[in-house]
Amino acid sequence: AASFTPATGQVDLAVIPGDGIGPEVTAEALKVLEVAAPAELKFSRTQYDLGAENYLKTGEVLPPSVLAEIKGQDAILLGAVGGKPNDPNLPPGILERGLLLKLRFELDHYVNLRPSRLFPGSVAPLSDAVLGKGEIDFVVVREGTEGPYTGNGGALRVGTPAEVATEVSVNTAYGVERVVRDAFERARKRPRKKLTLVHKTNVLVHAGQVWWRLFEKVAAEYPDVTTDYCHIDAVMIFLATDPQRFDVIVTDNLFGDIVTDLAAAITGGIGLAASGNVNPDRTAPSMFEPVHGSAPDIAGQLVADPTAAILSGALLLDHLGHPEAAARIEAAVLADLEARTPGQQRRTPEVGDAIASRVAG
Amino acid sequence: AASFTPATGQVDLAVIPGDGIGPEVTAEALKVLEVAAPAELKFSRTQYDLGAENYLKTGEVLPPSVLAEIKGQDAILLGAVGGKPNDPNLPPGILERGLLLKLRFELDHYVNLRPSRLFPGSVAPLSDAVLGKGEIDFVVVREGTEGPYTGNGGALRVGTPAEVATEVSVNTAYGVERVVRDAFERARKRPRKKLTLVHKTNVLVHAGQVWWRLFEKVAAEYPDVTTDYCHIDAVMIFLATDPQRFDVIVTDNLFGDIVTDLAAAITGGIGLAASGNVNPDRTAPSMFEPVHGSAPDIAGQLVADPTAAILSGALLLDHLGHPEAAARIEAAVLADLEARTPGQQRRTPEVGDAIASRVAG
Ligand SMILES: CC(C)[C@H](C(=O)O)[C@@H](O)C(=O)O
Ligand SMILES: CC(C)[C@H](C(=O)O)[C@@H](O)C(=O)O
Repeated sequence: AASFTPATGQVDLAVIPGDGIGPEVTAEALKVLEVAAPAELKFSRTQYDLGAENYLKTGEVLPPSVLAEIKGQDAILLGAVGGKPNDPNLPPGILERGLLLKLRFELDHYVNLRPSRLFPGSVAPLSDAVLGKGEIDFVVVREGTEGPYTGNGGALRVGTPAEVATEVSVNTAYGVERVVRDAFERARKRPRKKLTLVHKTNVLVHAGQVWWRLFEKVAAEYPDVTTDYCHIDAVMIFLATDPQRFDVIVTDNLFGDIVTDLAAAITGGIGLAASGNVNPDRTAPSMFEPVHGSAPDIAGQLVADPTAAILSGALLLDHLGHPEAAARIEAAVLADLEARTPGQQRRTPEVGDAIASRVAG
Repeated sequence: AASFTPATGQVDLAVIPGDGIGPEVTAEALKVLEVAAPAELKFSRTQYDLGAENYLKTGEVLPPSVLAEIKGQDAILLGAVGGKPNDPNLPPGILERGLLLKLRFELDHYVNLRPSRLFPGSVAPLSDAVLGKGEIDFVVVREGTEGPYTGNGGALRVGTPAEVATEVSVNTAYGVERVVRDAFERARKRPRKKLTLVHKTNVLVHAGQVWWRLFEKVAAEYPDVTTDYCHIDAVMIFLATDPQRFDVIVTDNLFGDIVTDLAAAITGGIGLAASGNVNPDRTAPSMFEPVHGSAPDIAGQLVADPTAAILSGALLLDHLGHPEAAARIEAAVLADLEARTPGQQRRTPEVGDAIASRVAG
């Protein structure tokens, strides 16, 4: 364990099923993962019961000993965490900051990878005129370890009319350059070789300058990659009217959060959106999770779509050095989506079984 | 002048046509404004040549004496400012921060009002399934004087590998409560009486807490208004798949910027989106402007759609206390949109003339 690059042999896999539909979709992702993985790869799973339910039971979000154990694993598969909305015993943000973001920061997941592809057969909320412009297939490289997500800031005179609260976005050359470089690498490997920087440099000047300057600097090393810049507000318009223009997007933590949810929405919904919290330097395990939440309202009914979790498993295999196995999962999902008929209601395990058997051949 | 509430008599109107298509659309907005205004209202216009062109000529963005003069006007109509993209003589952000944001901050435009309505006849990028859910008609109350737009922050060790740049979002009880209160007032006056707070309280905790707390506090005074909360990322999904759920949205400066561009895109495009930078306390003139930019690529050809500028004129009349006159412009725009035929090419003044003659009756 703890080489974080086991392309063969035993892979120590931390599984965090989480809350709500998390365990349901994780079970299907694991099912497909086992079928898709090449024979030389053996998963040794350790399950970690973390999330809202565990917090309500134990009062702990992520004990240091558990974090230390997870750090020794090769990779992490996460379902979804989050309790009932407005549960008075669940302070808002406690799981987000104490668990999800904590893992991203502690494990240096500086590349939050979110592919968006409109698979044929899936239902998009866009008009035929927009969809008719061509294939939608882009990937967002979202910075994962700094920006407005650091928790920096504070408040003064809380609860008085003179209260002032600040929220500080921290952007370092160290943090920006490495994620920009990763995005250029990914852009170079794609047919269109196009990279768009997304920011709001005309208003957020301090942060904007370091992003802009390092983007330009790294661009000079990738003359084969076409570059482009878009303000975050303009991206909204393009995603709604011309999403085909994007190939790879690189952006900060908060803009990336916003852009990827819209990207998921226009490509068939959050039920299909996979993500990887990647540590490209492999100094700690990377973590793979669907973009969707724990959906407590439909939990326990086995009606959740496990596709996003299954596709997150594909990203995991790709990260472990098995792009062909990842491609097999993607192809199976594609075939499954094409075979879906409108109004068809399949239970969560049925979807997992269907995809797994397509992967098996 | 300088009562900022002249419902009758002379209205001193500052006109800032700006760059690119700005002057073209402003001319049509003024045309319609004159026709729609009640007889007792007389506009006395002063034109201010500000923007990229003026900056390139004079080296000044907004001289203090000009700002002082504008402060003495009753209201401002702005076209659009901005030069050619990547003009090396135009430092990025200089007009945005030196002119647009400067005016919003100096004139205490704490309510940035952006209505979104899908007029019948206009082309939306959403599918029939989404559009079929019902009418889209909501308004975003965007905070305009603080948040991440203050310019607070800085950079250290610029240009070295140790560079760190911060961007500070400043949120005060003073600033948050007044805009939240304004939004509740607006929600109360609408049929559905629903107000949604948009933020990212689970991550931006310091800012999130003051927004959340003051939203809850003011809500207690408006028991007739239904309240709701949405994370900014979830708003992306709802705007793409169920925009009908929104009635009034209140949010911070940056989230408001992002949300309103997507709102404009899904309701027929930025060519129709009007906005008001409102000082509800009337301690300074309010400013009305289309959401779109100066579009230098199509400037001078008289092909720009002046509808957004014309609708901004309606917001101006409403602000001056003439909701009926504003409604007449809206109705004329609606009729004009319904009468448009696909592929029809009208020149900018033709659209203005058509709407003006509908207003005239
Ligand atoms: C749950 C939340 C902290 C998280 C984020 O903001 O990153 C989520 O929205 C996501 O996109 O993974
Ligand atoms: C031009 C820019 C500074 C401005 C903003 O960010 O507010 C614009 O995008 C807008 O929405 O009016």
